[in-house]
Amino acid sequence: MTQSLLNDRDLEFLLYEFLDTQALLQRPRYEEHSREVFDATIDTARTVAEKYFANHNAKGDANEPSFDGESVEQIPETKEAWDAFAKAGFLAAHYDFEDDGMQMPEIILRASMAIMTAANIATTGYPFLSIGAANLIQSFGSDEQRARFIPPMQQGRFAGTMALTEPGQGSALGDITTTARITEDGSYRLSGQKMFISGGDQSITENIVHMVLAKIEGAPVGVKGISLFICPKFLVKEDGTLGERNDVALAGLLHKMGYRNTTSTVLNFGENDGAVGYLVGEPHKGLHYMFQMMNEARIGVALGAAVLGYQGYLFSLEYARERPQGRLPSNRDPASKQVSIIQHADVRRMLLAQKAYSEGALAMCLYASALFEDSHTADTEEERRDATLLLDLITPMVKSWPSKYCLKANELAIQVLGGSGYIREYPVEQYYRDNRLNPIHEGTEAIHGLDVLGRKVAMNGGAGLKLFNEAVKASLGEAEHLPAVTEFTQPMLHGLDTLNGVTEALLGNLAHDPDTTLANATVYLDLFGRVLAGWIWLKQAVVAARALDNDGLSAADLNFYRGKLQATRYYFQWELPEIDAQASLLKRLDSVPLDMRDEWF
Amino acid sequence: MTQSLLNDRDLEFLLYEFLDTQALLQRPRYEEHSREVFDATIDTARTVAEKYFANHNAKGDANEPSFDGESVEQIPETKEAWDAFAKAGFLAAHYDFEDDGMQMPEIILRASMAIMTAANIATTGYPFLSIGAANLIQSFGSDEQRARFIPPMQQGRFAGTMALTEPGQGSALGDITTTARITEDGSYRLSGQKMFISGGDQSITENIVHMVLAKIEGAPVGVKGISLFICPKFLVKEDGTLGERNDVALAGLLHKMGYRNTTSTVLNFGENDGAVGYLVGEPHKGLHYMFQMMNEARIGVALGAAVLGYQGYLFSLEYARERPQGRLPSNRDPASKQVSIIQHADVRRMLLAQKAYSEGALAMCLYASALFEDSHTADTEEERRDATLLLDLITPMVKSWPSKYCLKANELAIQVLGGSGYIREYPVEQYYRDNRLNPIHEGTEAIHGLDVLGRKVAMNGGAGLKLFNEAVKASLGEAEHLPAVTEFTQPMLHGLDTLNGVTEALLGNLAHDPDTTLANATVYLDLFGRVLAGWIWLKQAVVAARALDNDGLSAADLNFYRGKLQATRYYFQWELPEIDAQASLLKRLDSVPLDMRDEWF
Repeated sequence: MTQSLLNDRDLEFLLYEFLDTQALLQRPRYEEHSREVFDATIDTARTVAEKYFANHNAKGDANEPSFDGESVEQIPETKEAWDAFAKAGFLAAHYDFEDDGMQMPEIILRASMAIMTAANIATTGYPFLSIGAANLIQSFGSDEQRARFIPPMQQGRFAGTMALTEPGQGSALGDITTTARITEDGSYRLSGQKMFISGGDQSITENIVHMVLAKIEGAPVGVKGISLFICPKFLVKEDGTLGERNDVALAGLLHKMGYRNTTSTVLNFGENDGAVGYLVGEPHKGLHYMFQMMNEARIGVALGAAVLGYQGYLFSLEYARERPQGRLPSNRDPASKQVSIIQHADVRRMLLAQKAYSEGALAMCLYASALFEDSHTADTEEERRDATLLLDLITPMVKSWPSKYCLKANELAIQVLGGSGYIREYPVEQYYRDNRLNPIHEGTEAIHGLDVLGRKVAMNGGAGLKLFNEAVKASLGEAEHLPAVTEFTQPMLHGLDTLNGVTEALLGNLAHDPDTTLANATVYLDLFGRVLAGWIWLKQAVVAARALDNDGLSAADLNFYRGKLQATRYYFQWELPEIDAQASLLKRLDSVPLDMRDEWF
Repeated sequence: MTQSLLNDRDLEFLLYEFLDTQALLQRPRYEEHSREVFDATIDTARTVAEKYFANHNAKGDANEPSFDGESVEQIPETKEAWDAFAKAGFLAAHYDFEDDGMQMPEIILRASMAIMTAANIATTGYPFLSIGAANLIQSFGSDEQRARFIPPMQQGRFAGTMALTEPGQGSALGDITTTARITEDGSYRLSGQKMFISGGDQSITENIVHMVLAKIEGAPVGVKGISLFICPKFLVKEDGTLGERNDVALAGLLHKMGYRNTTSTVLNFGENDGAVGYLVGEPHKGLHYMFQMMNEARIGVALGAAVLGYQGYLFSLEYARERPQGRLPSNRDPASKQVSIIQHADVRRMLLAQKAYSEGALAMCLYASALFEDSHTADTEEERRDATLLLDLITPMVKSWPSKYCLKANELAIQVLGGSGYIREYPVEQYYRDNRLNPIHEGTEAIHGLDVLGRKVAMNGGAGLKLFNEAVKASLGEAEHLPAVTEFTQPMLHGLDTLNGVTEALLGNLAHDPDTTLANATVYLDLFGRVLAGWIWLKQAVVAARALDNDGLSAADLNFYRGKLQATRYYFQWELPEIDAQASLLKRLDSVPLDMRDEWF
């Protein structure tokens, strides 16, 4: 069995039918591009993915990086993949022409990244983090910092990391203890330990630029005292050549269940004289700056979850088509021929669920990328503001829904294969192990639940939720006139009403009893995610229904669009109804977990 | 952090309060035993578990068995554990005194096995399968077969396996192609390939007794042509010494995601002259015989799932108590002390869910073991028959509910630990990988769904379901008079009514449209499992409520019983309500997956 990377037809559908990517060509930033340029970019990504990333996905898992106390040992394909990625220009493609970039839109690059991630999520971790680190310097660094670090990061000579977490605090960034002491020349000396730093050391690039959160001595307590620093592994001289080794040491590698070819590190900063660090932007604004990288990373993590789900779906689909076993219940003749397992209703259920989760998640992530694009390049100030507000609101669900349900998709892919799904001869068990990280990093569900219910829905007077309502109602307006999708309007409206009702009930209680109101925020996050995913499916169904109204569709297109409608049907009839039990629990401010006492466990 | 094996207080509760294990002492088979003998047996299991099984759980995972083409290499602790298990008498303990056993009741041995499995599920795989294989010979073999094979299997010189699955058929046993040809001396020669045979080869015992399903030449097609054979790795001479190597060869080891220290093998029977096999019982009754082993194994697999869930629960509970991070939402002072994460409502939710799943699953498995005991040793014929009927009915759920929800428990244990849960320095990621097998082997959810809805509920005129109704109503009758648990009576009754309503609606349609009726059998299985688990929790709550009515309880006991009540509350308010969406889907004979076409994917 060969393993294809995503589904080209679906990707085309998502970019040019579900989203109107072609319309970007009307915007000044992209007027020199064309659909052909976009397609060529994605083709390049596919070629690089197939040749340099897919080749060592299993090998990197079976031969994880090791550390002998001196240097990190990695399979050589990792560096080859990095070099191919850099050579194809993907480290710089999103920069403007004047900044040595290709001025490529976000959505095309996310789609390109999706394909490479589908081939090998662990190895794509390195460029994924480096791009985010460089973006931080580009956005908030000084001219001098940009000049020194951006070009080598665009060329792939330097990689980048985000160094937030410490052993003692995990998600509670306000409590970090890494300190920064100013020196006479204006640079800082950092001291502290960071943990779970992906790509924190490796044998791929000549230098690594750590974007480090630390507290300047005397800074305010909590998140308001966090600053952001550039702290390279090797100091960089004015002429751009490498200087001496900075006081950043790899304390050790962490050994993960999956994602193994991405090193996960414990880093010691300043064990000797202090690690040289350069303040980015203003003091104490580090967390605010870092949120740019985190929000980008959140869509990226979700996209990784989506494509792992997608790969498991495609593999188990092909397996189910090829594997004969058993007969339908109505066939009592043991001498009759066995059917392919795709004929069994329960196997179809598991494939349909995977399709709903993974195609839905990919659509959701690309929609979020389109919002990101709009927030930067939409024609009017108002459009840009609205896109920002809506993206801010839905980011917690965009991060969490794919992470949760595409892990579930991978669980189902294993189940479709049965015993074969549990052995390492097939790729689905690795997808499952790789994907288990995604509900954890870039914020657990608990963190995002608190973020959306405790902050986001009420922010700006609820402007984001109002925009979400308008967007869903616009889709409902379109659906009403399409007989093929009218069946979805009532459940979608019910979903939206349920979300609004629950939100209103909870927000009314938030100020005077935050502990009880936020106790079930994770359930709220899931409910909102289900409604958002319902809308994403409704939007796809509307496009499919319109397409099916055309004459002369090829058989392949007819099947494709009908599949979208059936997946939407599955979603609305099998997945969305669970919000009712959730809403009931949320509205009554259920306190069963909150009331549980430590000593009763 | 030390890792305890299960919770002694809970095990005592389950054996002597939730179940009335002490009453077994009134039965003739156990009249020479005492509570002290039962406790000593469990203490022995705990000692063996701690000393010989827990010591290499992680090591066996990191150093899986290998095959060099000649023999299987395994870490030496595996054989030491096997020897300790055998020396402690657990391979023979369930046999009657006259058969060199200890005449120990099922429930005590299941509890003992639970402790050893909690320490190391992979290594307990060997005795688990050997006991089942020997039981088959004991039940259905000839006197001569018993005399030749049972003593060395009791002593631990020989291990046993169950060799059902073949590469070409998986769960569809009717289509196996391994053949048996009779020879002049009445023995058979077997030819064929078996796959996923756990313990099919190893370096622990001097011989391995394979219990093989095969078809005698000319047998009827389908399941009615399957016979059962004893096929040892080495032939056994009349004096009990080993003879020549049989024609059974290890084709290779399969490499699993977890459960790694249990070898999973592909075995070739009869590559040369045919493997010598001895027919057990009558021809063509092999599947019927094998069902004894499978039904025992199903409770055993569920118990394995339960204790893996339980170990993850205990570990993440201890971690949550010790790990400081963040503050409650109502605390806006960043300078205040961090709380232990167990103070966060969402962490409590995850711990409470794990408690509900794992303690509920262990209780369910032990309850099933008590039914097994009753089916053999209850005082009256009627009691034995009823226990058999009820156990037959609920076995699919007893296998499936713990396998599904204790895997979910392990997913939550990882989530409680966050990034630390994803690295191999902590045990929870191994529990998760180990537990992923349990929803697959001994019948997937799809198989058990078809079994319960297509066969079991209607069997014997629905006698099993009637008994289940009576049992639940008896608990409801008890609960009505206990103020601490009356809140659970309405949801329990609703659950039972829902199950009955759905069952009636589906059975009415089964004969004329089996394909549509059984299309969602997996959902039916889950709904029934939820109702069964609800009842298991109600029964525990009733016991806890009665205990709390007593004066003079210790603080530890007060906390323990209150914890049981809160877990019941969690179960009824958070888990059971999902049956409503499932019932709606089942009653309308939803055909969304069934209608999905291959070409639409």
